[in-house]
Amino acid sequence: MLEDKNQNRTSLAELGEFGLINHITKYFTISHSSTVKAVGDDAAVLDASTKQTVISTDLLIEGVHFDLSYMPLKHLGYKAVMVNLSDIYAMNAVAEQITVSIAVSNRFPLEAVEELYAGIQLACETYQIDLIGGDTTSSTKGMLLSITAIGKANKEDLVFRNGAQPTDLIVVTGDLGAAYLGLQVLEREKQVFKVNPQNQPDLDNYTYLIERQLKPEARKDIAELLKELDVKPTSMIDVSDGISSELFHICTQSNVGCKIYEDKLPLDPQVIATCEEFEIDSTMVALSGGEDYELLFTVPISDYEKVKGNPNFSIIGHITEKNQGLQLVTRSSKEIELKAQGWNSFKEN
Amino acid sequence: MLEDKNQNRTSLAELGEFGLINHITKYFTISHSSTVKAVGDDAAVLDASTKQTVISTDLLIEGVHFDLSYMPLKHLGYKAVMVNLSDIYAMNAVAEQITVSIAVSNRFPLEAVEELYAGIQLACETYQIDLIGGDTTSSTKGMLLSITAIGKANKEDLVFRNGAQPTDLIVVTGDLGAAYLGLQVLEREKQVFKVNPQNQPDLDNYTYLIERQLKPEARKDIAELLKELDVKPTSMIDVSDGISSELFHICTQSNVGCKIYEDKLPLDPQVIATCEEFEIDSTMVALSGGEDYELLFTVPISDYEKVKGNPNFSIIGHITEKNQGLQLVTRSSKEIELKAQGWNSFKEN
Repeated sequence: MLEDKNQNRTSLAELGEFGLINHITKYFTISHSSTVKAVGDDAAVLDASTKQTVISTDLLIEGVHFDLSYMPLKHLGYKAVMVNLSDIYAMNAVAEQITVSIAVSNRFPLEAVEELYAGIQLACETYQIDLIGGDTTSSTKGMLLSITAIGKANKEDLVFRNGAQPTDLIVVTGDLGAAYLGLQVLEREKQVFKVNPQNQPDLDNYTYLIERQLKPEARKDIAELLKELDVKPTSMIDVSDGISSELFHICTQSNVGCKIYEDKLPLDPQVIATCEEFEIDSTMVALSGGEDYELLFTVPISDYEKVKGNPNFSIIGHITEKNQGLQLVTRSSKEIELKAQGWNSFKEN
Repeated sequence: MLEDKNQNRTSLAELGEFGLINHITKYFTISHSSTVKAVGDDAAVLDASTKQTVISTDLLIEGVHFDLSYMPLKHLGYKAVMVNLSDIYAMNAVAEQITVSIAVSNRFPLEAVEELYAGIQLACETYQIDLIGGDTTSSTKGMLLSITAIGKANKEDLVFRNGAQPTDLIVVTGDLGAAYLGLQVLEREKQVFKVNPQNQPDLDNYTYLIERQLKPEARKDIAELLKELDVKPTSMIDVSDGISSELFHICTQSNVGCKIYEDKLPLDPQVIATCEEFEIDSTMVALSGGEDYELLFTVPISDYEKVKGNPNFSIIGHITEKNQGLQLVTRSSKEIELKAQGWNSFKEN
């Protein structure tokens, strides 16, 4: 597919590693005073001043985390940055820098790497992120990306996973399950394409789902919004594996239980309609779908007035004592135990 | 090979990602007060206090950067950390933290990942490094590691690549070329093994070379030594691709030329003997072999008395005006142009 798309192919071997690094980094600009030295030395140099530095890293591998048959390279670059920024925002911190390491096999021409970096650059511009370093090498098979994101925060603003207390409200931003369904739609189209390459897919009913899968946005705005509302979460995590799994992390680390309500889970109409079409349970999708890159957090019940009715937030339940376990209250008022069904990349399909 | 070695095999799919992370990180301890929060949240938190933060990252891929048929996993883990620490030391900074991301295919049992982390842990203990995060996932093929190292330094102590001045002395630590030759010896043994698996290799004559390849040590000691000697280099870089390539970086970024002397290149006797045996030019090996993880730096000529005769240092030449180019003065006093023949992973062999 890549071979077809690119009329001009420049071999990576011709350029070599240093040539490639120069070529792909020359359009990136630096916007933070904390970035003292970016690409071009043995290491980058940062000055956090009086703040604390927050660091997170993720590895994305072709065939495991993404499929280039429906993930355009520019989107992949953009999404890879989002995945990492999301972790920084989940600390209630401001993301400022990234390092990007890539490995590509010789089947990728320079133009493919340029596409990827165009997406990375767009993400950097949109979110004001400085690219400060990385590594560029060949792989024996496919493409992989390793991104490290760096942010900063005042010590007193940082929010960890371990501060949730019984009676705290559980809040989630945006809506859930759309990215997972977007993937299902794309997978279906891929199968159709295999059988009939002439088929023109009609994806009008799935635009939101596909956008959430291919071009997710990290919630940079939430830290600012919380500050405006004068709310400091007691715990926070980003929704990468699905909220079941994320609640499991918060409850384990905070030594508490939780109760969430099925009828409070925020679902986009396209999610509901597509779940019906695919005959899958929308609650399961919301709980375990993953890749939403929304933020899940807890606030003291005394903050109820500050968060209720805000269009960015859904209050989906509350924290309980540890011995209550993790419970989902269904629409028919039954309580069932939540299971952390996060994605396990080691499971063979 | 891995399958044969492990009597007990625990499947990674059984453990899952979180189980695996808990399992492999539980033996790591934290030794720096700058590590506020390590593994276990969305991001790690560091406090650099009044210092500047230095960050470097590297990607190591099976089949490209290492061959598990002769690189034991424990050594691989150790070496992967060294490669990254070396970049931090090349900034004249102190390395304090790392993040480690790994991807492994299902052919690796838990016991293999444990071996890898045993090497990482040994490196962390020996060099006082805190493991603060990472990512753990499956790959479609083989193993890969992505490590980010973080260090700190006073602003005034940092040494970049761009400060070399004409007349500065060019100094290299340790000796050169041994790691490259170690690789050649191991490659030869691999070929012999393929033909005759019963053959017992006699590697007594190559112990130093093999150790330099399989268990390199990063030069943590040099920053301290330079401080004791009251020497601040004008530029510094670590020798990962060979000094030709590293000199090329320093000269380009400093806008200068250089002249180095063939008879000053520090070579271990095993390097000289093995070059004769393999019928390869020892100067070429010293210049372009790579993976030495020594430090190459420049100091003002006024520091000559401070560095000369120190067993850790070899003065191999001096910086010249840019228009002089990069020159090697041979034993027969001929001047030939140095070429940056660093390794290009994109080149097909």
